[in-house]
Order: sequence, then structure tokens, then C-alpha cells
Amino acid sequence: MTQPTVADLDEDALIASFVPLLPRGSRTLVPTGDDAAVVAAPDGRFCVSTDLLVAGHHFRPEWSSAADVGWRAAMQNLSDIAGMGAVPTSMVMGLVLPPSTPVAWVHDLCRGFAEACGPLDVGVDGGDLSAGEQLVVAVTVHGDLGGRAPILRSGARPGDVVAHAGALGRSAAGHALLTEGRHGGSDEALIADFLRPRPALDAGPAAAAAGASALMDVSDGLLRDGRRLARASGVVLDLEPLEDSVPSALAGLADAAARLGVDPAVWALTGGEDHGMLATFPAGTLPAGFTRLGTVRAAAGAQAGAVLVGGVEPTISPGWDHFRR
Amino acid sequence: MTQPTVADLDEDALIASFVPLLPRGSRTLVPTGDDAAVVAAPDGRFCVSTDLLVAGHHFRPEWSSAADVGWRAAMQNLSDIAGMGAVPTSMVMGLVLPPSTPVAWVHDLCRGFAEACGPLDVGVDGGDLSAGEQLVVAVTVHGDLGGRAPILRSGARPGDVVAHAGALGRSAAGHALLTEGRHGGSDEALIADFLRPRPALDAGPAAAAAGASALMDVSDGLLRDGRRLARASGVVLDLEPLEDSVPSALAGLADAAARLGVDPAVWALTGGEDHGMLATFPAGTLPAGFTRLGTVRAAAGAQAGAVLVGGVEPTISPGWDHFRR
Repeated sequence: MTQPTVADLDEDALIASFVPLLPRGSRTLVPTGDDAAVVAAPDGRFCVSTDLLVAGHHFRPEWSSAADVGWRAAMQNLSDIAGMGAVPTSMVMGLVLPPSTPVAWVHDLCRGFAEACGPLDVGVDGGDLSAGEQLVVAVTVHGDLGGRAPILRSGARPGDVVAHAGALGRSAAGHALLTEGRHGGSDEALIADFLRPRPALDAGPAAAAAGASALMDVSDGLLRDGRRLARASGVVLDLEPLEDSVPSALAGLADAAARLGVDPAVWALTGGEDHGMLATFPAGTLPAGFTRLGTVRAAAGAQAGAVLVGGVEPTISPGWDHFRR
Repeated sequence: MTQPTVADLDEDALIASFVPLLPRGSRTLVPTGDDAAVVAAPDGRFCVSTDLLVAGHHFRPEWSSAADVGWRAAMQNLSDIAGMGAVPTSMVMGLVLPPSTPVAWVHDLCRGFAEACGPLDVGVDGGDLSAGEQLVVAVTVHGDLGGRAPILRSGARPGDVVAHAGALGRSAAGHALLTEGRHGGSDEALIADFLRPRPALDAGPAAAAAGASALMDVSDGLLRDGRRLARASGVVLDLEPLEDSVPSALAGLADAAARLGVDPAVWALTGGEDHGMLATFPAGTLPAGFTRLGTVRAAAGAQAGAVLVGGVEPTISPGWDHFRR
């Protein structure tokens, strides 16, 4: 008996089969099933961000279960809302499915979305389906600022503290272990963090509440995203060597790094998809969960947008570029 | 000299090259460029809907210019907001681009979005890019209910009038003319309506203001979407023959239909992508722009969800199914 595929059901029946697997949030006023969903925005504003996952580019079906893909698609979007200092409330998803896709794969994907969103009271409130040659998961997520100002990338000022919350390099390490195929029991935690990243979602609103001057989600690596923040703010980020600022993060990478002959600081500086929060704060106390990485410096013209580590600009590859890999 | 493709620019440079082409709406508080956009929702709620366009499934690059694709992607999403009785305010878009995609194609796509959204004061407030094997345009659109209740598909009641605003069958006719390759000067208007559909966007909020009991965008054909409305409402839609209710719509299809040997009523009943508004109203006056199609009848159990035309259930194919074509 072969597994039923999406080509065996009509579109309405396929949708009806998975909608019950998706969570409805407490802000969902009209759920999926009509032309549009209606979501509460008591703040009078909403945050919105969108992200795509493409099979073979953002995930490999041989590594990631459908539930892993759903989890990651949800989490990388949720993290963009946290990166504004907001709390996620609702998402919608579009799926491009090759006709050979098993119905069970789609159901598992929905379970991954539910595992990520349900505990956060985020509804999956709509979507769209299409056939296509390549599997694509398109997610748009919304968030509530709770009356606070959004924290942008452009607010860092000379003298501010640069700080980070969440994982650094763990996803890159897990990816490298799977790529090299050389992993044992002690590496499973890194691989799990690659397959199911755990963004520092609470750290976003916490940073906003603590008066962060700038904030962003680190999705493409500390170095590359740090340069984006520095460029948007017209400053330089002057980071201490990671060995001094985040020794325990590097220690957690050390075994795997040694086995693969990699400097763990390179994973921590360039690895994407950990979805930690990079923030700057006026000098003073950091909120819980944040670790000081360095100091914001004034840029002297052409220098704006630089990230220095130990006083020098790292020459290592600065992270992901989807069209160049 | 070959045309530059998206593989010739890094992702940040590509984004920077097209963001200036996209409109910013008056509700856009934080535009694209940060982790998320921030959009005003003075109503305290927002509508949200998402739709995908996949090359080869939803458009053929040999028929549709990139600007046509952008226009259509925008319009079919805007129409879902009108289908709730709301006014569109903001959208985000995700693009999956084969590396061979010319940069100029992406710029033209953005111009199509701008032509559709700009005059409506709808901002294109964010997006995401990925490489992939197949071109996909993923759009999520938001709308404002202006303090009114959303008009759902489920509110039709026996005795209500069934009515429609906008085009019927023109997109299907244009598609058929392009497919058959037999078209002349008098067909250009139908082809133009296929390439650049003009949804009845104003009719959605007008229906809501006039007290519509049910409302939806007709994207998959009058028959198929009518059945969805009837099923959601637990009723039957009893339509007069279209020759009686919308003779001028059929007259506009007659020449092309005669040449291709098609019954124009079949295009009007089953053709998708016209994005008219299907509504039901308590008996009384219809708002301007709506034409009476028939009457809502009580369903006797198994009959709920049926659409009768001239007293019988049409046996013609009921419209699009993406996984079955």
C-alpha cells in the first residue's frame, strides 16, 4: 500500500485534513477558513515579517523531519518579532508542494508548527497551498508591541554596550557535524539545536523593557548581522575576543570543533540560524539573559558598519548569502 | 553584454536595488529594512491573508511580464481583504528566484506591485528572498475593517439575495484565447483582464456598509466559490440562468466564445481569477455595483452547499484545483 500524496486529495479536503492540527491563539478573532483571518491588535499597531524556507536550500529532507521543518519555519519567523522587542501573536503559512508530497508529511509539518506556536499562544491563522516542483514553506508572522516603541537596528549610539542573548554557533556546529557525518552521542545536543533552533524569544521584549537602543535577531551570523546593525546605526561595534566574552558558549562547541578541526570562534562569529538577540544598551545594567560582547564606537566616515573583534576586522567569511552559496 | 542576474549581486545589494521601487503606505510606521515592519491598526484588529504564485502554475513567463505577475500577485491578495469587507493597508512579499533570474525581471515585478498598491495607499512593507529552482511569489496582505464587523462566508440566510460585483469569466476567456492562440484586436480587452485582473475592491467595503450577510472574493470560479459560501452558511444558492441575470457580462464574452466554440456561461460560472465579490444581502436594495444573481434557499440536509443554476445543479467542471490540473 502506497502512502497517499497531496495529489490524491482535492485542495479543500487536504486543507480540511490539517487545519485541526494547527493552533488557534487567543488573539485570533476570525480563524483560517474565510478570505482572511482577523487578529486582535489592541496596541493599535502590529509588527509583520515574512520568511521563506526552500527545500535543498534551507533544509534537507534527509536531515530534517517535516515537524523539524515546521518548527524551524515558525521559530525563525517568531524570532524576527522578538527582534523588534515585540511578542508574537499570529502567523500564516503558504506551502508549495510537489504532487508527490505525502499527506503525512504535510500533517507532520503542521505538528511542528503547533509545537512551536501553541505554547506561545500564537495562532496559525491562515494559509495557501499550491502545487510546484520544489517544496517551499512561506511564513508571515505578526506581533504585538504592548504599547512600547519598536526597537530598531538604527538606534545604537557610541558608548552603548553591545550584548547578546541566546545561542552562538550551535546551529552551525550541528550543521557541520551532519555534513561531515562524524558525530557521536555528545554531539546530539548541537545537532538538535540545528534541527530545532531555540530563539531567545523572551530576550527581545526584555531588551525593549530594559531600554535597549538597538535590537535585532541574529539569523545570518553575529558578524554579518552585527555589520547590518552597525551600518544602520552609523557606528562601529568593537567586540572583545569571544574567548573573553562568551567562554562558555565556545566551551560548548569545543569538542565538536576539535574533532572537525574548526576554530569554535568562527562558528560563533559566522554561524547563522541560532536566532539569538543582538542588542545595544546605554551603559549600565544589562537585563537578565544578556551577555556583554563589547562597546559601540563612533564611526569615522568610511568605517561605519564595521565590526571589530579584539580590535581588528575579522577576515573570515561573513556568513550566509543565499544566491552565492 | 549579458543581462545581470540575481546571482551577480549579493542579497543585501539586490534588496537595496529594488526597495526604492516599492510604495510605502500612510499606515506604514516602520518600513522594510528592520527585522519586521510596523503597521498602524487603529481599529485594534487587522485582517490577514496569504497567497502564492508559482511560475508555470499561476502564470506563464512567456505570457505575463514581470510587472503583470507583480500586479496579479498584489491584486489577488488585495481582493481577499475586500472579501472580508475591509480596506487593504499593507503587504509583504517573499520571492524564490532561480539564480538565472535577471535583476531587471525583479525590478519589473516590483513596478507591477507598485502600480497595483501605490494608488490604493497600500505599502509593500517587507519581504524575503531565497534562491530556488522554481520562481515563487508569496504575498501576505493586511487590511483594516474600519470598526465594522468582518463579513464572513457563513452568514447567508434563506431569503437573502445573492449578488455579484465585478467581472465574470473574462479572465478565463483571456486565458483560453492565449492558450488557443486565436485572438485578434477585439480580444485584447479579455486578454488584458487575464493578465491584469481588476478586482472589485471597492465593492467589498460597500457590501459591508450595506449590511451584507455573507461575502467572499471569487477567485476559483462562481460555482466553486459559491459552493464554499453555501456550505459555510448551510444553505443552497438558487441562481437564475446567467443569460437572465448578467446578460451584458455574457455579451462581452460572446465573440471570443463563438470563435472558440465555448458556451460563455461556462466561462462565467467556472472561470477563476476575476476576483469579483460574491455577496448575500437581506432582501431589499442592493448597493451600487452589485447585480442580483438569485436567492438563498434553506438546505434540506444533504443539499447544503449546492449551487443551482436555473433550478438544476450544473454538471460542468467546478473550477480550479491546483493539485489536479
